[in-house]
Amino acid sequence: PLSRLPEVGTTIFTVMSRMAQEAGAINLSQGFPDFHAEPVLFERVAHWMRAGMNQYPPMAGVAPLREAIARKVEALYGARYDVETEVTVTAGATQALFTAVAALVHPGDEVIVFEPVYDSYVPAIELQGGVPVRLTLEAPDYRPDWAAVAAAITPRTRMIMINTPHNPTGAVWSGEDMAQLAALVRGTDIVVVADEVYEHIVFDGRRHESCARHPALAERSLIVSSFGKTYHITGWKVGYVLGPAALMAEFRKVHQFNVFTVNTPVQYALADYMAEPQRHLALAGFYQAKRDRFRAALGASRFTLLPCAGTYFQLAGYEAIGDRPDVDFVRWLTCEIGVAAIPVSAFHHDGRDARVVRFCFAKHEDTLDAACERLARL
Amino acid sequence: PLSRLPEVGTTIFTVMSRMAQEAGAINLSQGFPDFHAEPVLFERVAHWMRAGMNQYPPMAGVAPLREAIARKVEALYGARYDVETEVTVTAGATQALFTAVAALVHPGDEVIVFEPVYDSYVPAIELQGGVPVRLTLEAPDYRPDWAAVAAAITPRTRMIMINTPHNPTGAVWSGEDMAQLAALVRGTDIVVVADEVYEHIVFDGRRHESCARHPALAERSLIVSSFGKTYHITGWKVGYVLGPAALMAEFRKVHQFNVFTVNTPVQYALADYMAEPQRHLALAGFYQAKRDRFRAALGASRFTLLPCAGTYFQLAGYEAIGDRPDVDFVRWLTCEIGVAAIPVSAFHHDGRDARVVRFCFAKHEDTLDAACERLARL
Ligand SMILES: CSCCC(=O)C(=O)O
Ligand SMILES: CSCCC(=O)C(=O)O
Repeated sequence: PLSRLPEVGTTIFTVMSRMAQEAGAINLSQGFPDFHAEPVLFERVAHWMRAGMNQYPPMAGVAPLREAIARKVEALYGARYDVETEVTVTAGATQALFTAVAALVHPGDEVIVFEPVYDSYVPAIELQGGVPVRLTLEAPDYRPDWAAVAAAITPRTRMIMINTPHNPTGAVWSGEDMAQLAALVRGTDIVVVADEVYEHIVFDGRRHESCARHPALAERSLIVSSFGKTYHITGWKVGYVLGPAALMAEFRKVHQFNVFTVNTPVQYALADYMAEPQRHLALAGFYQAKRDRFRAALGASRFTLLPCAGTYFQLAGYEAIGDRPDVDFVRWLTCEIGVAAIPVSAFHHDGRDARVVRFCFAKHEDTLDAACERLARL
Repeated sequence: PLSRLPEVGTTIFTVMSRMAQEAGAINLSQGFPDFHAEPVLFERVAHWMRAGMNQYPPMAGVAPLREAIARKVEALYGARYDVETEVTVTAGATQALFTAVAALVHPGDEVIVFEPVYDSYVPAIELQGGVPVRLTLEAPDYRPDWAAVAAAITPRTRMIMINTPHNPTGAVWSGEDMAQLAALVRGTDIVVVADEVYEHIVFDGRRHESCARHPALAERSLIVSSFGKTYHITGWKVGYVLGPAALMAEFRKVHQFNVFTVNTPVQYALADYMAEPQRHLALAGFYQAKRDRFRAALGASRFTLLPCAGTYFQLAGYEAIGDRPDVDFVRWLTCEIGVAAIPVSAFHHDGRDARVVRFCFAKHEDTLDAACERLARL
C-alpha cells in the first residue's frame, strides 16, 4: 500500500480559497485577515536580516523570543515557564500540534478530540497509529459534555486535544470546564494538548482560560499558540509551545528532526514586536467590533447566527434557505452569491452540522459590508 | 512509556555550536557560513512584506517560486516537473525528509541508509515504525558498495535514502553510481529519497548527478533541496521537494497537516532572487577556492586530509595526534585548541570513524586562516 493516509484529500481551506478566487467571490472561508500588519514589524525583520542574523538559530528558538513569550504568559496567566527547557518556537501552530502528537502518541494509543475538530488533528493521530476517539460538541453552544468525556477515558487514553477559543464554533471554555478537565485527568498519565491560537480573541469581557492558568492542567499540558492570528501574519508560520520540561524534552526530540528550527530574522523581529503588550491586548476589542458589525448586518437575513464568544469565526445556520447539504450550499454561495464560507460538516467525520457554515470576519469593514449585503439578499 | 524516541538526545550540531560559543572557539562544527547573503535578497523580502503578501500562501508554495525551481531544474538537469503537482516548497530540507518518510514508510517497512548518515534520517524512520537498514560507506572514499546494496534489498524494502554530494564525507556519486542504483530498483516498489541540498557545491569540474537527470530514478524519487546552503541563509529554513505526481500527492497529504505551508514574503523574495542563475552557478567555484585554501593550510599539519569532491565539509583523520576517541578529541580541540569540529562517529550507530572529524569551510578566509593556524600547531 502506497498511502499512509488513504482517506485524506486536499484541505477544505485550500479548496474553498481556490474556489473563491476562481469565482471572484468575497473570501470569508479560510481564516486570514484582508488587512495589514503594522509596517514597524516588517521594519524589524528587515533590520535583523541586514544585521546578518540569517543563520541557524538555536533549535528551540532565539532567546529573546522565548523570553518575550515567557514574560507574556506570566503577565497574562500567572504561570512561569523556564525559557531554556519549557518554551519552544515552532513553524506555526499546525507544526506544533503535529509534532506533539508524533512525540507522545504510540501506536494503539487513544486520543480524545472534540468534533467539530480542526482538520489536522485526526490525520496527525492516525499517521502515528493512534486511535482518535471523537466526542461531539452540540449546536448551538458546542459545550463539552463532561460525563461523555469521563466515559470516553480508558486505560489506553494517552492524550486529550482541546481547543479554546474554539475553531470553527467560536465557543470559549469556562473556568468550570477547565476544572472538570483537571478532575478527569488527575492521577492519570494523560497529556493535554491545548490549541490556544485564538487566546487573544475572546469577547464580552470573558477571560481566556489558558491551561497555563490551571496548575493541575499545566503540569501535564503542551500549550500551543501562534503569532499568525495575533499579529495578522498568518503567512509567516511562526508559533510556539509551552510545557513542563519532561514533556518538552520529548517534543523537542521530534521537533529537531522535523523542522529543526524557525526563520531567524523573523524570530528576532517578533521578540522586538512583543515588547509592547498593547499589541495583543487590543485584539479582543478590535475583533469584537467586527463581530458586532457582521452580526448586526446579518441580523435581518435568513441566516440563524450562532453564539460567538471568541475567535474570528461566526457560525450561521441556513435551515430556512434551502435543502442543500452544506458542501453544495457553500459552492452555490461562493459561485452564485459571491461569498465563500467553510461548511462546518468538513470538521466532522459523519456529516453533522450539515446546515451550518463558518464565516471569517477578520476583514475590512468594507469587505464585511459587501459580503453581508450579498448574504442578506438571499 | 512516555518517549517515542528513547535513544535520541540533543543533535551533535547543537551540542558543538554551544560548546564552541562557551569556549570562545572558532566554530567549524555546525554547517553554516560566517559571511553574508546579498543585501538585494533582504530587500526583496522587505518589498513583499510591505506589499502586503503576509497571509497564507498556497499549501504547495507560491507559484512564482515553484516556477523558478522548475525552470532551474530543467536548465540544469534537463528534467521537467509540473509546477502544480510535482513541486512543493518546504520549511527546509529536514522537514522535507521527515515528511517524505512519514508519508511513505509504513510500520515494519525497511529503509536503506548509508552511514555515516545525517542525523535526522534514522529517527524519522524509527518514529514511523520503519526499520533502518544501515550500509557502511568506508573511508577514505566513502563510495557505495553496490553488491552490498543489492544484498540488503528485501521484499520489505520501501525506501532508499541517498545523499549526494554527501554530508559529512564530501563524496559525490558518479553517473555510474546512479546507473547501479537504477538497475537495483527497476521493477520494484522502492522509493528513492534523494537529499541533494549541496547540489551546487561540486568541485574539480565534476557534475552533480541529480536523480532528476536519470529518468529511471526520477520516476520513483522525491528529490530534496534547500535554499539555505545555496544562498547563505541557513536560518531561513526554506527548501523544496520534486517528485512525480503520485508520490507528491502522498507527500502533500502529510505536509499539509505538518507545516501546511512556508513563509510567504520569503518565498516571493526567493523567486525573484532565483531569476539570476549565476547566483547558484557561481557557488562551486566560490567554495572550491575555500576548500583549496583550507586544505593547503592543513597540508603540513598532523591531520590526514580525506578527499573532498563536494559540500562545504572537509574530513580529517588525526591518527597521529592522539589516542582519544573523537568525541573527547573534538572537546579538546574546541576547548584547548580553540577550533570546534564535528566527530564523524556521531553519524554512525556503532562508533565507526572514531579518528575522523569534520570541519566546515563555509567561512571567511580570515576565519579559515585563523583556524588552520591553530590546527597546524598541533
Ligand atoms: C491552514 S489554513 C486554515 C486557516 C484556519 O485556521 C482556518 O481557516 O480555520
Ligand atoms: C540542523 S543544523 C546542522 C547543519 C548541517 O547540515 C550540518 O552541520 O551538517
